[in-house]
Amino acid sequence: MTETFQFRLLAEDGRARRGEISMPRGTIRTPAFMPVGTAGTVKAMYPDQVRELGADIILGNTYHLMLRPGAERVARLGGLHEFARWPHPILTDSGGFQIMSLAALRKLKESGVTFRSHVDGQVHELSPERSIEIQGLLDSDIQMQLDECIRLPAEREEIERAMELSLRWAERSAAAFGEQPGKAMFGIVQGGDQPDLRIRSAERLSAMNLKGYAVGGLAVGEPQSVMLEMLDVTLPAMPHAKPRYLMGVGTPDDLLESVRRGIDMFDCVMPTRAGRHGLAYTRFGKLNLKNARHAEDSRPLDEQSDCSAARDYSRAYLHHLVKANEILGAMLLTWVNLSYYQFLMQGIRDAIEAGRYDDYVASVKEGWARGEA
Amino acid sequence: MTETFQFRLLAEDGRARRGEISMPRGTIRTPAFMPVGTAGTVKAMYPDQVRELGADIILGNTYHLMLRPGAERVARLGGLHEFARWPHPILTDSGGFQIMSLAALRKLKESGVTFRSHVDGQVHELSPERSIEIQGLLDSDIQMQLDECIRLPAEREEIERAMELSLRWAERSAAAFGEQPGKAMFGIVQGGDQPDLRIRSAERLSAMNLKGYAVGGLAVGEPQSVMLEMLDVTLPAMPHAKPRYLMGVGTPDDLLESVRRGIDMFDCVMPTRAGRHGLAYTRFGKLNLKNARHAEDSRPLDEQSDCSAARDYSRAYLHHLVKANEILGAMLLTWVNLSYYQFLMQGIRDAIEAGRYDDYVASVKEGWARGEA
Ligand SMILES: [Zn+2]
Ligand SMILES: [Zn+2]
Repeated sequence: MTETFQFRLLAEDGRARRGEISMPRGTIRTPAFMPVGTAGTVKAMYPDQVRELGADIILGNTYHLMLRPGAERVARLGGLHEFARWPHPILTDSGGFQIMSLAALRKLKESGVTFRSHVDGQVHELSPERSIEIQGLLDSDIQMQLDECIRLPAEREEIERAMELSLRWAERSAAAFGEQPGKAMFGIVQGGDQPDLRIRSAERLSAMNLKGYAVGGLAVGEPQSVMLEMLDVTLPAMPHAKPRYLMGVGTPDDLLESVRRGIDMFDCVMPTRAGRHGLAYTRFGKLNLKNARHAEDSRPLDEQSDCSAARDYSRAYLHHLVKANEILGAMLLTWVNLSYYQFLMQGIRDAIEAGRYDDYVASVKEGWARGEA
Repeated sequence: MTETFQFRLLAEDGRARRGEISMPRGTIRTPAFMPVGTAGTVKAMYPDQVRELGADIILGNTYHLMLRPGAERVARLGGLHEFARWPHPILTDSGGFQIMSLAALRKLKESGVTFRSHVDGQVHELSPERSIEIQGLLDSDIQMQLDECIRLPAEREEIERAMELSLRWAERSAAAFGEQPGKAMFGIVQGGDQPDLRIRSAERLSAMNLKGYAVGGLAVGEPQSVMLEMLDVTLPAMPHAKPRYLMGVGTPDDLLESVRRGIDMFDCVMPTRAGRHGLAYTRFGKLNLKNARHAEDSRPLDEQSDCSAARDYSRAYLHHLVKANEILGAMLLTWVNLSYYQFLMQGIRDAIEAGRYDDYVASVKEGWARGEA
């Protein structure tokens, strides 16, 4: 831990990077996967469990928290860390992405975006300055600029307009954030599936000399090949010495391929959401516990796992819990999935350090392809 | 632990009893509260947690388990203990009560009851013999006779008919259960709110020399005073040297008053169900976390509690989780409530041993009346 936000690269293997972000609230080993704690809770998990699985940082959603319980209320209660019993680093998004996907009556202007809350129907406004203010009230350690993220496919003209707007909002966000040595504000590269727009966005953001950079607007409807192509194009235009965060990604395969291209941080609802829908991620690939073939299978998901949920409960029991819609089913499968994601990240970090990243990726994919024993 | 089912009385204070049931799978300290694990899970709790709170035994519901996953399937998977990862004693009810409250198209005959499953609409039949067979397939340690439990108020004629039928079913259940030294089958006293019927039921069952006895058909709509009056009348007619189980009861106050009258065992969905509906049981009484007055209350529910959920999370956070319908809210409040129930039972047992049960009850009720600090 340090008094100021710092990023160190510890090892590189090809374009894959092993690093460390140090901040007053803790150290983040990269490549890092950040479990999503949307409304101040990583769903179906006790915070201590999330930590024990190896998460150095979690993500909180500005959109959800500004609506309920409200940023000012969280601030009066001592900030999000105190509120949610997570004393380690927290990254908050800007709220923009959720407004576009969850809120009604959205209206986008140069100044910001107005929308109607999906919680109580009230109209709210979010500007780059207000987003940073909210993230400050939450006392978030890594804050994100407000941006405009659009779904793909989209017209080039529309992609360019949103990318240019996001750059102007990056300037305003950086000004609003100001100097905060122990924290960071990251800018977000946009540009859809247009290589030249991606590069322009990355270069203009780089010139702002921010503490870190995200790649946004991917995993929004395009095939994985397009996403990886955009990473191939974009990452070389981003500063080598700053952390690089791929937002909202992804499957275990997405993580392996994105790290290979130089990504340092991820967040995704996939492991938690899948856990509430009867899906398990394991060394043997993805299993659907709803499937009747598990009904009398007394084997655990992975008898060699460090995770009790994967090692100590039978597939038959998990199948039963999922079919009966029991809360314990969501609790156990979320635990299994977050455990697997952190296990994968640890393997990724070890492999980069050992200079054998390609071998690691090959062996992991072999395990998925081989399937369960 | 012992090879055979045994009950020992360790201390008495007035009519309150401190005892111990020994069975091959473990020892049950009485008075005991049994958390309800309806469908093979105490909802929103890991089994290890339930154990750590001090539960020596949990209850499983024959009705739910026979429908899903099915008794034969549980047997093929090694029994309910193995299936649900609970190696300690399990009591199963007979299924009769849930058929009456949950199933459709119920038809009661001398031979048994037919009903339509609330899960898949299939028609099933349950007889005293089949209920014992199912409880055997589940490998339950304490099994209950099939009985007919009716809601109050009811006509005396109807109460008497159901009580007499339940006695005939007790004989058939006992015959079906046969000799199983390490396990027990309990008979159930019925008789509604009619003292003479209660006494007749208790005496006729006593003559069967079963290993334990339950009081059924209470907490089914009548005021607490009627329930306690029935206990006053019934318990003296039941064998002193056998465990006495009051089915489906109750509030913390019900537990205190029933122990005072000589009850040894309880089960109730109240702490678990209340936990999923935003209600917390504490030393200071019952709190509704949905209430807006908790929204900015940074205090925990009980800073002196041994339970992390009651001690380490603020009321404001619990309020937020409940309002946002987060699974963690149900997880934490269920934990709080089961912890309080077990804390209460431990206090009850200690007080009886110390010969100061009345003082204990008075001080507990004083805490509830004083309310939160
Ligand atoms: Zn995602
Ligand atoms: Zn009850």
